[in-house]
Parts: sequence; C-alpha cells; structure tokens
Amino acid sequence: MASIFTKIVNGEIPCYKIAETPEYLAFLDIRPLHKGHTLVIPKQEIDYYFDLDDETLSGLMRFAKRVAIAIKSAIPCNRVGVAVVGDEVPHAHVHLIPFQTVRDMLFTNTPLSFSPAEMEAIAASVREHFQ
Amino acid sequence: MASIFTKIVNGEIPCYKIAETPEYLAFLDIRPLHKGHTLVIPKQEIDYYFDLDDETLSGLMRFAKRVAIAIKSAIPCNRVGVAVVGDEVPHAHVHLIPFQTVRDMLFTNTPLSFSPAEMEAIAASVREHFQ
Repeated sequence: MASIFTKIVNGEIPCYKIAETPEYLAFLDIRPLHKGHTLVIPKQEIDYYFDLDDETLSGLMRFAKRVAIAIKSAIPCNRVGVAVVGDEVPHAHVHLIPFQTVRDMLFTNTPLSFSPAEMEAIAASVREHFQ
Repeated sequence: MASIFTKIVNGEIPCYKIAETPEYLAFLDIRPLHKGHTLVIPKQEIDYYFDLDDETLSGLMRFAKRVAIAIKSAIPCNRVGVAVVGDEVPHAHVHLIPFQTVRDMLFTNTPLSFSPAEMEAIAASVREHFQ
C-alpha cells in the first residue's frame, strides 16, 4: 500500500506545499513543533533514510538546504535544525525545524496548532523565499 | 580561535575515532544518548550546517551514510537517527544516534556514561564494520 507521503506526492491527500522538483517534495508538517516546521521527502518510496542511494541522498539534502534557507528567511528563528527519525511513516523524510532553542526541536513537545488559513499563510511566506 | 572539533581534526584533542577521509571525520560523542552515538563533521570549520556548499554537504551525508551502516551493523538498534542542532559547538556536525525508540534521541536525556576502555571498544566495533 502507498505510504501517506506517496499519496501526498500523487495529490490524493492535500498538503501545504513549499517546493517541488521532479524527485523531491517539501511540505509543512501538520503537527509542527515550531512555526514553519517542514518535511522534505524523496518522491521515491523508500522507508529508511540510509537505504537511499547516494545520488538520491545527496540530492535530497541539497534540496533540503534550499528549503531551509527559505524557512530561515521567512520565519523568525535562530537556525533551522534537522531531524531524521522515521519510525512514524515508512517513507524517508527529513524534518526541518526552525528553532530559537534546542528545546523547540523536542519530539515530546505538544505540537502547535494553526488554522488552515494560518498554515497556508506560513507555506506561502516560505514559498516566496524559495529559490 | 579553532573550534574544539578543529582541535580534534588536528590531533590536539584526542577522540574515539570511527572513520576519516581527507574531508570528513567521524568520532564518538563523549556525551552519548545511546551506545554508539557518533558525530560526523566536515574538517573545514563552518559553523552552520546549511552554510556548507552543496558539494561538501553532499559528501558529508554520503560519508555519514557509510558510518550509519557501520553503526547499525555493530550496535544493536532499531535504526540510526540523524540530528543537526548545532548550538553547542560552532562547527557543523551531524549526530548519528542509534535508537530503539525515538525517546533515545531526546537531547534532554541524561547522557550515558562509559569508561574510556568501553568507549574504545565501542569505537573499535564500529570501525570494524566501516566500509
């Protein structure tokens, strides 16, 4: 069965899209730890991050860098942190989490809640800075 | 002033080395969240991970993948997670953290304590699997 992320790639499930290339997709995490928390994925459905072939892994991180630069331009934060855990959805994904302090990145924090209009506004502001 | 990681690169400060290339170095984190917790760095001293140029970033993650595969072979774990926070040492570094559950990756956990002999044995067992 297709992963929930493959369904997002295929447009079967909507997302707050940030950026897309033929190989990669970035969209807002709907359970954000910080405003602007974004997921970056390869469109190819591979479960474990370190099972990605070298070329896909390299391309994913170069794409993630472009997204992280856009996030940092759009969202007030100290830096954009990176986390790959991957025990929730069996489709490799990189969390890009803008943070003020390292505590903003704790997965045990209660996710923030934004309305759909707020989420769309956040996505639009990051998209505007994506190059 | 050289970062503590540049001093490790230059051999001025010892480390439990896992692997090294002309551009990158991997060594055990001395405040491990899990047995086998490793730091992977570019030898070039750049503070913020997303300031790395594309080639250095790609090479760093391909090297990190080889290290992560060795960790997973040597250390009983579910997966090897990735974290880049970088507000402690101003020299870009990737945490590779073997984990059973996501809670093993929480930076608020008290670090584990191993003797120097145990740390050397852990490093040796990971080194043995590095390819």
